[in-house]
Amino acid sequence: MDIAVIGATGVVGKQCLELLDSGALAGLGRVVPVASAGSAGRDLAAEYGLSLKVDEVVALDDFDPSGLDLAIFSAGAPISRELGPVVAAAGALVVDNSSAFRMDDDIPLVVPQVNPQTMATRPARGIASVPNCSTIQLVRALHPLRALGELERLIVATYQAASGGGLRGLDELAATSRAILDRAQSTGPSAGASGRFGQPLAFSLVPEIGLRDDDGISHEEHKLRREPRKILGLPGLRVAATAVRVPVVNGHAEAVHVTFDRPVDARDALDVLRAAPGLRIYGADDGYPMPRQVCASPESSALVHVGRVRADPDDPCSLLLWVVADNLVVGAALTALEIARLAAESSWA
Amino acid sequence: MDIAVIGATGVVGKQCLELLDSGALAGLGRVVPVASAGSAGRDLAAEYGLSLKVDEVVALDDFDPSGLDLAIFSAGAPISRELGPVVAAAGALVVDNSSAFRMDDDIPLVVPQVNPQTMATRPARGIASVPNCSTIQLVRALHPLRALGELERLIVATYQAASGGGLRGLDELAATSRAILDRAQSTGPSAGASGRFGQPLAFSLVPEIGLRDDDGISHEEHKLRREPRKILGLPGLRVAATAVRVPVVNGHAEAVHVTFDRPVDARDALDVLRAAPGLRIYGADDGYPMPRQVCASPESSALVHVGRVRADPDDPCSLLLWVVADNLVVGAALTALEIARLAAESSWA
Ligand SMILES: NC(=O)c1ccc[n+]([C@@H]2O[C@H](COP(=O)([O-])OP(=O)(O)OC[C@H]3O[C@@H](n4cnc5c(N)ncnc54)[C@H](OP(=O)(O)O)[C@@H]3O)[C@@H](O)[C@H]2O)c1
Ligand SMILES: NC(=O)c1ccc[n+]([C@@H]2O[C@H](COP(=O)([O-])OP(=O)(O)OC[C@H]3O[C@@H](n4cnc5c(N)ncnc54)[C@H](OP(=O)(O)O)[C@@H]3O)[C@@H](O)[C@H]2O)c1
Repeated sequence: MDIAVIGATGVVGKQCLELLDSGALAGLGRVVPVASAGSAGRDLAAEYGLSLKVDEVVALDDFDPSGLDLAIFSAGAPISRELGPVVAAAGALVVDNSSAFRMDDDIPLVVPQVNPQTMATRPARGIASVPNCSTIQLVRALHPLRALGELERLIVATYQAASGGGLRGLDELAATSRAILDRAQSTGPSAGASGRFGQPLAFSLVPEIGLRDDDGISHEEHKLRREPRKILGLPGLRVAATAVRVPVVNGHAEAVHVTFDRPVDARDALDVLRAAPGLRIYGADDGYPMPRQVCASPESSALVHVGRVRADPDDPCSLLLWVVADNLVVGAALTALEIARLAAESSWA
Repeated sequence: MDIAVIGATGVVGKQCLELLDSGALAGLGRVVPVASAGSAGRDLAAEYGLSLKVDEVVALDDFDPSGLDLAIFSAGAPISRELGPVVAAAGALVVDNSSAFRMDDDIPLVVPQVNPQTMATRPARGIASVPNCSTIQLVRALHPLRALGELERLIVATYQAASGGGLRGLDELAATSRAILDRAQSTGPSAGASGRFGQPLAFSLVPEIGLRDDDGISHEEHKLRREPRKILGLPGLRVAATAVRVPVVNGHAEAVHVTFDRPVDARDALDVLRAAPGLRIYGADDGYPMPRQVCASPESSALVHVGRVRADPDDPCSLLLWVVADNLVVGAALTALEIARLAAESSWA
């Protein structure tokens, strides 16, 4: 299988290459990393310390998709929108990490642990979309709970890491945090001014991810409503979200309040979650998941971590959960590769 | 008015003295700072750069409450529990920042902007309680909205700053953040190990504040349920909270979903909030409140900041809000002094 990784020099692209290096896709042939012209010629296998054989980085303008089987796009929605259909027309399956096609009716929005049936036939346009990182961990935690009753309503508050803003976001959090620590006790609003997050994030919070519409709902909050509805096949699911950027390096967290169509028991929820694949569950004696620990090893980064599972004391039909996952791995690179694997193992491949 | 500040060397105590220095209480006489024996003799006016006349710090064991009019306790619940009644018996009004007495039926739990009537008579036991910091900002944002309809249900996720863990919490966040930055790229779980927050907080999240009970609800989450019920006089108010410590220096934030007993309009909510005292409201063109900015000046620290006011797209009876306040000022010191002022201005004083 010959593949291209578009956006290979970014934080998601790097995770893709590292996962490929650890054997995430069987039968791997050529690996073509693609990025901007400024990155052309870089030797990513050496930079990232991989034993995987990887071509030199190719500039997007020089990228030739012919003969490829798979192209994973992680270079932003404009590039996916422009180049995705071209690469699909050349014959490669496009797996897209951006928001470009997610809500298109004829594009499957795939979480392999939740709706693998969407890949039972080859996507009509040759493109499969990876959901938003916050959506993936949310639906992976919630889907198994449907054994207890149908989901009716979600109220979600997110705690999203700086790595969600890419390499620039990570660099900025480190640089501005250090600047604040060096001016001990500085609390002025100018410290840590940020380009990447719209407002200074270091040692603070930015309660808006993406622009907001006339109703005051941000782009990220719309994604958290529309995408779970599509993936879960529940167009009437009620979802109210608040998406907040927090000064965490990596790993998104979500405080989830979920209401079912019937009374549910927190112990039953734990049992059902424990039996589901790809989750790590924290019971009464197991502490709780935290972003740094969750992202500290490849094994842990590959799972969705669910803790603080408890009943709503005032509503027998509702539960509360705390869901954490590595937004670069579960939230993007690994899910993209799992979608590719689903395709490779399907009858139509 | 002769007063004592118990816990004067802590982060809340320091705010108390600074607020007194800026004239928060009229007719101030002696100011007696009290702390542990290790702090005895410290000159806090010099240390904090105050023009206020303040006695040398007195060790708790040497503290003589006789002749005092007011004692503000900010040294933890055990000290309040032991010493509060003694000081009240000596004739001083005790205003307690700890959780020691909050839920006692015969102790007023006071937010001057919300339930000043609780101070219309002298508290039976001579003690008035200041609510938990997270509670104060929550009820101050919600109370004015009752003009639109009665509150039925709250679903709250908190983003609580390190200063909520006192001086030690602040020092630890700074030290562990620096340690992580200095080991560039370190993401191991041991980095930033914490005593104060139970788990490492730097560049991560700790989703549990206070111990949790057999139902999995943490102490802080119980406070967020019980205290608003008592303050608002709504014993049946449904409240489901998730309390999370975030690597923010100072300033607590809350993502609030509130349901009313009738349909409500987000623009009406903005109007009502704008007319309420002690709030700063962020409308469509005003951005949103963030902890660093909120805590950057005394004027701003004295207000409760409410932004991102919006309708729940799936429920005409619900609104979402983002509420931020300085947990040391609004959340403790200033509210304590406002309670003292209420008392001083009352007919019974
Ligand atoms: N970060 C996350 O948590 C996350 C999660 C899910 C999905 N995603 C999605 O993944 C994509 C990449 O995100 P990221 O966080 O990895 O961003 P990033 O670290 O900023 O990396 C961006 C990548 O895109 C490339 N790129 C940017 N502009 C380009 C251009 N004009 N031509 C060619 N290549 C270009 C960059 O190449 P150069 O290095 O040469 O500039 C780099 O490889 C985005 O669509 C994002 O929405 C991200
Ligand atoms: N931080 C917040 O956001 C916040 C908000 C609302 C309410 N509160 C409440 O306010 C109180 C103080 O919190 P803080 O954050 O200011 O804590 P802090 O910074 O740790 O300060 C604790 C204070 O208590 C004194 N103290 C501790 N043990 C003592 C002892 N055995 N004898 C005499 N004094 C003793 C300390 O004196 P030394 O310096 O001599 O040790 C210091 O003055 C707590 O009850 C807390 O729950 C805090």
